[in-house]
Amino acid sequence: MIIQSTIFSKYLSDEGMRSNVGDHALIKNIILFEKSLAKAQSKLGIIPAGVAQEIQEKLEKIAIIPENLVIGTLENGIPVITILEILKTKLSVEAQNYIHHGATSQDAMDTALVMIIRDALKIISEKINVLIQNFESLKKSYGDTPCMARTRGQLALPITFGMKINAWEQPLRRQLTRLSEFFPRLLKVQIGGPVGNFSLNIDNGQELVQQLAAELNLSAGDPWQNQRDNICELGNWLAMLTNITGKMGADIMVMAQNEISEVEEKGTGGGRSSSMPHKNNPVLSEALVALAKFNVNLQLQLLQSMSHQNERDGTALVLEWNTIPQMIVNASAALNHASTIGTNIKVNTEIMKENVARFRNGT
Amino acid sequence: MIIQSTIFSKYLSDEGMRSNVGDHALIKNIILFEKSLAKAQSKLGIIPAGVAQEIQEKLEKIAIIPENLVIGTLENGIPVITILEILKTKLSVEAQNYIHHGATSQDAMDTALVMIIRDALKIISEKINVLIQNFESLKKSYGDTPCMARTRGQLALPITFGMKINAWEQPLRRQLTRLSEFFPRLLKVQIGGPVGNFSLNIDNGQELVQQLAAELNLSAGDPWQNQRDNICELGNWLAMLTNITGKMGADIMVMAQNEISEVEEKGTGGGRSSSMPHKNNPVLSEALVALAKFNVNLQLQLLQSMSHQNERDGTALVLEWNTIPQMIVNASAALNHASTIGTNIKVNTEIMKENVARFRNGT
Amino acid sequence: MIIQSTIFSKYLSDEGMRSNVGDHALIKNIILFEKSLAKAQSKLGIIPAGVAQEIQEKLEKIAIIPENLVIGTLENGIPVITILEILKTKLSVEAQNYIHHGATSQDAMDTALVMIIRDALKIISEKINVLIQNFESLKKSYGDTPCMARTRGQLALPITFGMKINAWEQPLRRQLTRLSEFFPRLLKVQIGGPVGNFSLNIDNGQELVQQLAAELNLSAGDPWQNQRDNICELGNWLAMLTNITGKMGADIMVMAQNEISEVEEKGTGGGRSSSMPHKNNPVLSEALVALAKFNVNLQLQLLQSMSHQNERDGTALVLEWNTIPQMIVNASAALNHASTIGTNIKVNTEIMKENVARFRNGT
Amino acid sequence: MIIQSTIFSKYLSDEGMRSNVGDHALIKNIILFEKSLAKAQSKLGIIPAGVAQEIQEKLEKIAIIPENLVIGTLENGIPVITILEILKTKLSVEAQNYIHHGATSQDAMDTALVMIIRDALKIISEKINVLIQNFESLKKSYGDTPCMARTRGQLALPITFGMKINAWEQPLRRQLTRLSEFFPRLLKVQIGGPVGNFSLNIDNGQELVQQLAAELNLSAGDPWQNQRDNICELGNWLAMLTNITGKMGADIMVMAQNEISEVEEKGTGGGRSSSMPHKNNPVLSEALVALAKFNVNLQLQLLQSMSHQNERDGTALVLEWNTIPQMIVNASAALNHASTIGTNIKVNTEIMKENVARFRNGT
Repeated sequence: MIIQSTIFSKYLSDEGMRSNVGDHALIKNIILFEKSLAKAQSKLGIIPAGVAQEIQEKLEKIAIIPENLVIGTLENGIPVITILEILKTKLSVEAQNYIHHGATSQDAMDTALVMIIRDALKIISEKINVLIQNFESLKKSYGDTPCMARTRGQLALPITFGMKINAWEQPLRRQLTRLSEFFPRLLKVQIGGPVGNFSLNIDNGQELVQQLAAELNLSAGDPWQNQRDNICELGNWLAMLTNITGKMGADIMVMAQNEISEVEEKGTGGGRSSSMPHKNNPVLSEALVALAKFNVNLQLQLLQSMSHQNERDGTALVLEWNTIPQMIVNASAALNHASTIGTNIKVNTEIMKENVARFRNGT
Repeated sequence: MIIQSTIFSKYLSDEGMRSNVGDHALIKNIILFEKSLAKAQSKLGIIPAGVAQEIQEKLEKIAIIPENLVIGTLENGIPVITILEILKTKLSVEAQNYIHHGATSQDAMDTALVMIIRDALKIISEKINVLIQNFESLKKSYGDTPCMARTRGQLALPITFGMKINAWEQPLRRQLTRLSEFFPRLLKVQIGGPVGNFSLNIDNGQELVQQLAAELNLSAGDPWQNQRDNICELGNWLAMLTNITGKMGADIMVMAQNEISEVEEKGTGGGRSSSMPHKNNPVLSEALVALAKFNVNLQLQLLQSMSHQNERDGTALVLEWNTIPQMIVNASAALNHASTIGTNIKVNTEIMKENVARFRNGT
Repeated sequence: MIIQSTIFSKYLSDEGMRSNVGDHALIKNIILFEKSLAKAQSKLGIIPAGVAQEIQEKLEKIAIIPENLVIGTLENGIPVITILEILKTKLSVEAQNYIHHGATSQDAMDTALVMIIRDALKIISEKINVLIQNFESLKKSYGDTPCMARTRGQLALPITFGMKINAWEQPLRRQLTRLSEFFPRLLKVQIGGPVGNFSLNIDNGQELVQQLAAELNLSAGDPWQNQRDNICELGNWLAMLTNITGKMGADIMVMAQNEISEVEEKGTGGGRSSSMPHKNNPVLSEALVALAKFNVNLQLQLLQSMSHQNERDGTALVLEWNTIPQMIVNASAALNHASTIGTNIKVNTEIMKENVARFRNGT
Repeated sequence: MIIQSTIFSKYLSDEGMRSNVGDHALIKNIILFEKSLAKAQSKLGIIPAGVAQEIQEKLEKIAIIPENLVIGTLENGIPVITILEILKTKLSVEAQNYIHHGATSQDAMDTALVMIIRDALKIISEKINVLIQNFESLKKSYGDTPCMARTRGQLALPITFGMKINAWEQPLRRQLTRLSEFFPRLLKVQIGGPVGNFSLNIDNGQELVQQLAAELNLSAGDPWQNQRDNICELGNWLAMLTNITGKMGADIMVMAQNEISEVEEKGTGGGRSSSMPHKNNPVLSEALVALAKFNVNLQLQLLQSMSHQNERDGTALVLEWNTIPQMIVNASAALNHASTIGTNIKVNTEIMKENVARFRNGT
């Protein structure tokens, strides 16, 4: 569904994060799910220990590339079936019968999705802390510098530059609190079979949930394949996060206007023009604004995918699976740029003070 | 900005809730803010006790109608200025000087907004509990009835009707948990003056925040006029809530198809057609689906208003103030309809069982 | 579904247009549809001439208020059934049998919608022409004034103020061209009965379409009840229209910043602050930006309602019927404000020239 | 900003179209712009003929890969500056001075964008015609088969399968009409220099526009760098197009339900399940529904980018450039799937007739 631009891959994306949440991560985590399912089922006596051993050992060595899943995904609307077919070519007949025992494709997809999110948000969370530290440093250097507040587009009254920074930092701190609230809800294993009731030869479903959750270091709980609220909560958190840096970008664009000149995005020089040598464009701030819009619109897509029909709704899942990774990457790119600005911003304290003085003098 | 339809006022709205969050509620809470501000400032010795007494007594008796605020709002983009002008016509000269002391329009608007939200969500929360009880009753009656699961639009395997109800109920229960998490963050007084730093003759700003919060039974905290994350968190909660009932509507529309006939939305007869006497349209379920879409799109609007510029952004605030009340009303209407369905739904248990039997027989 | 704010009714709305597209207009045009249907069917010999005469005469005198349709709309998800019930109470038994002959509710709703749109867009189109004339006058007065262009938030090179105005005017002119293209497609009668094939006692459906279209001065064509592309095309036109004035608002907000001061939104003084007497807020420009966002988001809602299921999709229609009128009102309010600005803007030509001179001097 | 999934590259994308509108196409068309600009300027005597000859010849041989533009795009927010730097390394000093003469980055980007759109829409237009032919064939085979209409989720009255197909086909035909209307408006060269007024050493700007347009087989016109209405009109057309096939998908999903069984998406078997061997999932129809949602949401993004500030707004352009290609690819993928369904759909005429008969018998 998506055009990935290499050209814009550092400006509007984060290549490192992209690989953490892309095709390879999905395949890796689906295979991890299948291995761990076998291990858990073996511990509970659901499948023979030797078979589970074989599945774990052989799956360890199998590398599946995304290209091999294209046709199968076209045919089935989900890649798991083809992944299983490929895995089975390496297994004994007995192991072929026991891999993915009692499970359905979405069990693998959803659990993999949750593990991808867990890994990615650990990084996102570190980036947030880095940015908060940036803000603290900025406040230490320039927090008390008098600076004009602007309301409804017009000069208001003097505040300090520290108050501006605080308006970026405080919501970021609340984001960490929110993360601590929703993360335990979200990091839940998905296992229940085709319709969520362990109907396929699984007698002790609750035990299986517990055991598999333990293997994957996730929490246990009822199947949630058609209850996507936790996903939407994550999405809104990501959209809010990107809006926080979006506001920072919007503020800097105002302060960096030539007529105001209170800051320059980067002391080392900003974006150039192909025709105007004097330009010093705040291009990272622009990216922050644009990334915020991208993520806001993607949250719309996630919310649309929440209201899904019956016990599994392909039209909704497909939307969701292709939205979450993008939102994470957008947020990561935005945090990168925000930290770059935080580290490199040139704060013209003299001009800030002059602007305040000029306001006080009524000129 | 909005066309209110009386025609659709019960089908796609909730008239009762509408009055809780509309113009009159806004005016009432702005006046309450001004009264309480005077009271708090008098207790702290910021304004004379007699003046505060006068303000409280006279404001108690003033009724302002929305019509009187139309021109002032057109001129100033916010109604508070005109409200204050009207209030002052009833006050002594001294009280005129002390009303709204050290405050700005947005202090009044935002604090009023938070109090409106508090009142409305108390009702919403009760409606959620009612709906959960509906679901519990339904499960008691029909929870164990075998019923076909449908995945990706096709018959899957048998589950129970109780599992379907659970997919509506469990997210609703999580909503109550979420509410308990974000509500304390959100219910925070806003007071800080024009640029959030108590610049207008207020020396003891922090004490004022504490005292005013105590008067209004809100929590205290730094001014948040350009930090709208808590508002967006509420919005997403409302959008998710309406999606939960939206999924319920979507599920019922499938089960109520004539070819399936597992349920009828209302045992007393559904929507009629002007030309087809045999029709029994699941019109409340349709409304649930539509209301979900309305609120999803409105959350988009709130997220857009989060990324706002400088110390106050009129383009963002205007968007937000006109979005929140609608989202609350939509959610309330959806909860009403969902409870109506929950109480009146006709569950055709025999057909459910036949559908399962037919599936097992492979016909 | 909607909260209508009286407070914001001139700032973010257009009361006059609101009445042109609201409940009363809907009722009036539905009754007009039923009268004209009777007349057309009488001319074609489908119903007796005397009955048609009675229907036309009696319907002329019946006033239905929206309040009487609330319960019926709740029950049926559409108001037409209740309107017909009320109308029938005034008719002879024979006329009761022949009113709405061969038609279905949506025939009445959609044809009424199209007629409402026709009337409203005639006004919108006049407002566009007024605004274009405003721009032409502005260009006559200030078109050649040198003025700084700003790109990517930074000073670029000098242009003229006329070029800025042109960037608002040229898209507006193209809108008139687009209107002339899509209007004939859109202004099409809807008549086809419950499933669009004249199944209810209508033998000469094509003739009926022609005759009814002639009566209502609409074009004829196949039933389009589940083909909403023409509606979406209108919606995008309205969203684009509001974006054109939105850009005008955004531009003025930049030029009106105190640090730039090239224009003031209104020479007579802008929005005031409850706490900062020096403020001159460009509140109409802010409204233009906000109204653009409202309409953009509403076009999303229309596009969502286009992809609808089967021969009639209540979840989609309900969305659409409640979106179109709002978009029209938003566009109308935006055109009003844009013309107010166009007439009252204070252009500080000396400052424009100084800003250019300062740029040329490199200071 | 975007995660491209290889796994979903045939299911939710169109690889062929992706290469037509991706990075390589952008680079190729930017180079074409620069060559043609030199040629046009040489013909008008603006730059020396020999230099223009050199530019054309050398640019013919230069291959630039997207990877080489990543850092430059990060620095400047636009890739053109880096492309020019690379091109200049191959040119004589004189040609270095004359390449891109009087132009700015956006001139190259926008003209390239328009040419990419032209090429892509030629293919899209052919795919529409193929699909219309598919529909005509289906109508020839099954057009008269009686079939139940369904309104508001319930059985309505009998129509024919041909009427269902018509509801997919007629809007598609109107799309071709619309294309013929907006395409001439859209296919317009962009050349005007940094602020759209040929300020950089170009005296005969209008002639240059004419000549460059002639070289590139585009129409001529004033610079439109901050007037994005034509782009938004295209976007809405793409969103509507994808909604038309989205409705087709939604309709097929209903008719393909096991309880209805009037059609199977593909006679050769549909999507499989990893756990339910009996499943025959209509996965292409699901993709049609999902692709419609993707494009609807992307049109929102385009509309947001229309309201842009000043003479060039980086926050808007970045959004737009990354949206248009995706919308084209989504539309193309949808047309592919719709044609696959049109060719492979299994129409169960006997069941259609039985469903009608059962309805007539009241059972």
